[in-house]
Amino acid sequence: MPKPKSIKESITIMTEMVMPNDTNTLGNLMGGNLMRMMDIAGAITAQKHCNRIVVTASVDNVSFVNPIPLGNVVTLEGKITRAFTTSMEVVVNVFSENIPAGTKTKTNQAFLTFVAVDQTGRPIEVPEAIIETEEEKELYDSAQRRRELRLVLAGRLKPEEATALKSIFNL
Amino acid sequence: MPKPKSIKESITIMTEMVMPNDTNTLGNLMGGNLMRMMDIAGAITAQKHCNRIVVTASVDNVSFVNPIPLGNVVTLEGKITRAFTTSMEVVVNVFSENIPAGTKTKTNQAFLTFVAVDQTGRPIEVPEAIIETEEEKELYDSAQRRRELRLVLAGRLKPEEATALKSIFNL
Amino acid sequence: MPKPKSIKESITIMTEMVMPNDTNTLGNLMGGNLMRMMDIAGAITAQKHCNRIVVTASVDNVSFVNPIPLGNVVTLEGKITRAFTTSMEVVVNVFSENIPAGTKTKTNQAFLTFVAVDQTGRPIEVPEAIIETEEEKELYDSAQRRRELRLVLAGRLKPEEATALKSIFNL
Amino acid sequence: MPKPKSIKESITIMTEMVMPNDTNTLGNLMGGNLMRMMDIAGAITAQKHCNRIVVTASVDNVSFVNPIPLGNVVTLEGKITRAFTTSMEVVVNVFSENIPAGTKTKTNQAFLTFVAVDQTGRPIEVPEAIIETEEEKELYDSAQRRRELRLVLAGRLKPEEATALKSIFNL
Amino acid sequence: MPKPKSIKESITIMTEMVMPNDTNTLGNLMGGNLMRMMDIAGAITAQKHCNRIVVTASVDNVSFVNPIPLGNVVTLEGKITRAFTTSMEVVVNVFSENIPAGTKTKTNQAFLTFVAVDQTGRPIEVPEAIIETEEEKELYDSAQRRRELRLVLAGRLKPEEATALKSIFNL
Amino acid sequence: MPKPKSIKESITIMTEMVMPNDTNTLGNLMGGNLMRMMDIAGAITAQKHCNRIVVTASVDNVSFVNPIPLGNVVTLEGKITRAFTTSMEVVVNVFSENIPAGTKTKTNQAFLTFVAVDQTGRPIEVPEAIIETEEEKELYDSAQRRRELRLVLAGRLKPEEATALKSIFNL
Repeated sequence: MPKPKSIKESITIMTEMVMPNDTNTLGNLMGGNLMRMMDIAGAITAQKHCNRIVVTASVDNVSFVNPIPLGNVVTLEGKITRAFTTSMEVVVNVFSENIPAGTKTKTNQAFLTFVAVDQTGRPIEVPEAIIETEEEKELYDSAQRRRELRLVLAGRLKPEEATALKSIFNL
Repeated sequence: MPKPKSIKESITIMTEMVMPNDTNTLGNLMGGNLMRMMDIAGAITAQKHCNRIVVTASVDNVSFVNPIPLGNVVTLEGKITRAFTTSMEVVVNVFSENIPAGTKTKTNQAFLTFVAVDQTGRPIEVPEAIIETEEEKELYDSAQRRRELRLVLAGRLKPEEATALKSIFNL
Repeated sequence: MPKPKSIKESITIMTEMVMPNDTNTLGNLMGGNLMRMMDIAGAITAQKHCNRIVVTASVDNVSFVNPIPLGNVVTLEGKITRAFTTSMEVVVNVFSENIPAGTKTKTNQAFLTFVAVDQTGRPIEVPEAIIETEEEKELYDSAQRRRELRLVLAGRLKPEEATALKSIFNL
Repeated sequence: MPKPKSIKESITIMTEMVMPNDTNTLGNLMGGNLMRMMDIAGAITAQKHCNRIVVTASVDNVSFVNPIPLGNVVTLEGKITRAFTTSMEVVVNVFSENIPAGTKTKTNQAFLTFVAVDQTGRPIEVPEAIIETEEEKELYDSAQRRRELRLVLAGRLKPEEATALKSIFNL
Repeated sequence: MPKPKSIKESITIMTEMVMPNDTNTLGNLMGGNLMRMMDIAGAITAQKHCNRIVVTASVDNVSFVNPIPLGNVVTLEGKITRAFTTSMEVVVNVFSENIPAGTKTKTNQAFLTFVAVDQTGRPIEVPEAIIETEEEKELYDSAQRRRELRLVLAGRLKPEEATALKSIFNL
Repeated sequence: MPKPKSIKESITIMTEMVMPNDTNTLGNLMGGNLMRMMDIAGAITAQKHCNRIVVTASVDNVSFVNPIPLGNVVTLEGKITRAFTTSMEVVVNVFSENIPAGTKTKTNQAFLTFVAVDQTGRPIEVPEAIIETEEEKELYDSAQRRRELRLVLAGRLKPEEATALKSIFNL
């Protein structure tokens, strides 16, 4: 089994400018383009953690509340939350910056799961993630709930067996 | 309020070929690129339903089980499931086709929500969706549960108030 | 020889949004970009008919009468008209939709020819196309004339031998 | 009416390298991508001739005989053949060069028509083209035939009235 | 005059994956694509420092010693070295990472100059850069020499007046 | 050793239209995109001279004085200045043309160096460049100074040994 690795070792920062072709009719970054950036930022983070090729296994619910206009700078920060046997959950936080106005807003957060694979595409073990801060601990703990939700949504776990998930319904 | 509209009027079919630049190191379509296509297919579907500009409000959990290799043909089918006051839920089904091999697989399904807006970006009422088939009825009913899940995940609804959602936990 | 196939089996619908980078100085879709879309729609149609890799052999005269502005939705419908020994003629009809205005116009029509090839690029037999409707019959019949025109224009057929073609000059 | 202009003043040379994303499954330049390049080369040529914004009016039959592989250098040469009242016909010759092999082949030729427009998109007069060489004379003469063919194909001229065109059928 | 700003406030990190279309015939990132990334990373850095729109004024000599192969992760770090009246020099360091191999190499370094402009494109004053570390001091000092070299190369300064530059020739 | 070749044999002309996605917030071509075009134009020139695959070794200082607005036509002319053992220096001159206004300006000049390589990426001898005009002679002579400057900047030559370079400081 690979040697455990601290979370900060694989933190990935991606900075992008919103270009004309990325925008919709209102001149704002299209949701799908942001998701494409999130996927790349998340994949690089996961690759750095496990030193393997990775493939996207799932992207959790993403919501788009704040439009990101043309010319803004988008910063994506990817961070491992928890490693499972052959997969890793990554949280990607997205910030939008209007530089001339001097404003920076957190606009989105997404949880993505990646599977480490060998050259033939077969899953392969990944290092555990060493938890060092309070915030990392919290993300690590809630990862189990998100995992159960994914399995329930994919029809691979019966809702009544989703122990951690049921807790958010205060049952 | 705009006149209700049948679901079949806005069904949208998008066909794409997987090009070299869309693929990862293993030669398969990158997850983020598929999500970009899903967003466009869904947005066109929602636009056709409400005859308005639309913006992406959220994308529900998407999972990637079957890799889609370079050269395959990807077909995306977008369909309204339910209209709320100013928003619409769209389901996008994705099929991957290896034409020389003669195989076609359903690879993904995603639920996206779009908000209709006027030229200034302000939300505006959308037509109701007229349910005509059994399958449409089912998607219409389950839309309420997915909506509650989105609101819970966004911290805008308390889990214990998510009446429809709780039912999937057989409570 | 491969088993004949009905035309409707390979009908291909492609939907695209006109993005900023696709437009000219007047904000309309550039002709060359539309032709690129037509080629992809046609190639997928031909591939579906013969279950082979295909390469573009020719594109007939295309005219651009109605400009397609930024933000419009473009729908391309590809359909086999006739199969020859190793080649297929495909008609691609293009529709432009201004969704907020609720208008949809047929803007272009093109006839493209594709050759089926094996992995080394050598031509290979394709299935005949089964004609089932009046419209399909008409396109099938006129395909011979268009083929002769292509051969004449390419200098591979003497005009006086273009029997079907001469008929349009009422000779 | 604008002052006549010699043909050589607007000759346009465009050089492109075939990039991975431009190619099909066999690793050759896709027909649609070449047509996109032809349209740009032709549009620049026409713009230079009339010093106006131009829009593509039509592209004549293009055939693809020689595949252009990845890594080859493509040279497009655009040249006015004849100016009509508000439109110009441009011939674009395409050469493919395998530089390490030291081979250069003429692979395609296309005739495109562009209309000069003002900022509102309304057609506007263009300068006549001054014929100076034997080759220019030939292209100028045959332009009339190609124009009639376009009009016949567009259903805007009865075949029996296509005087110049009929001549190629030796009638 | 705007309030001075520390250098670390505008440090910009950009992470990119080398995609198929970015590579040359040998499968390595093309020099021109890397320069495009450097320009964006540098422009964001400069924008953050001055909270203005910026335009590229010059890029100093860049050399390409280590090829960056397809699939590698490229990290660009932009950092202000010195602010002049309306312009800023930025150093961009480029690192290439082969993640499965676990290697990370510094492959390039470039010095770019950006001018801050208002909405009409007119130059506008920028904040001074506060020097806090030894390394920042060194880059600040050498910026004067690089500036003189740029002016000499642009023919806007006589070599014999380039006081700081002459010092590197130990005169 | 390969047979010497005249400079005019490899002159390369590239014509591009400035597209929306190439521009910055002010609607002008971004510096990095122009450098990407220069690199391609230069690489094709060098390839033509040596009939080999080439890789970019360095790009000398480029300055951007005249903005090139959206819709302008950019012409790049690449020309060998001097061949060294396995490398070639190419000068790329850039012209920007506002066609409706009838203006054409030389906006940039860059010197790029390319190394000829075999399929494994190993450097390989290139033909000498035959000097035929006064202008070619001048560029040939000054190439030595630029080469020394590159070596000094790369720390591979001591400034005091840069004989040709020192001469521009009139020492």
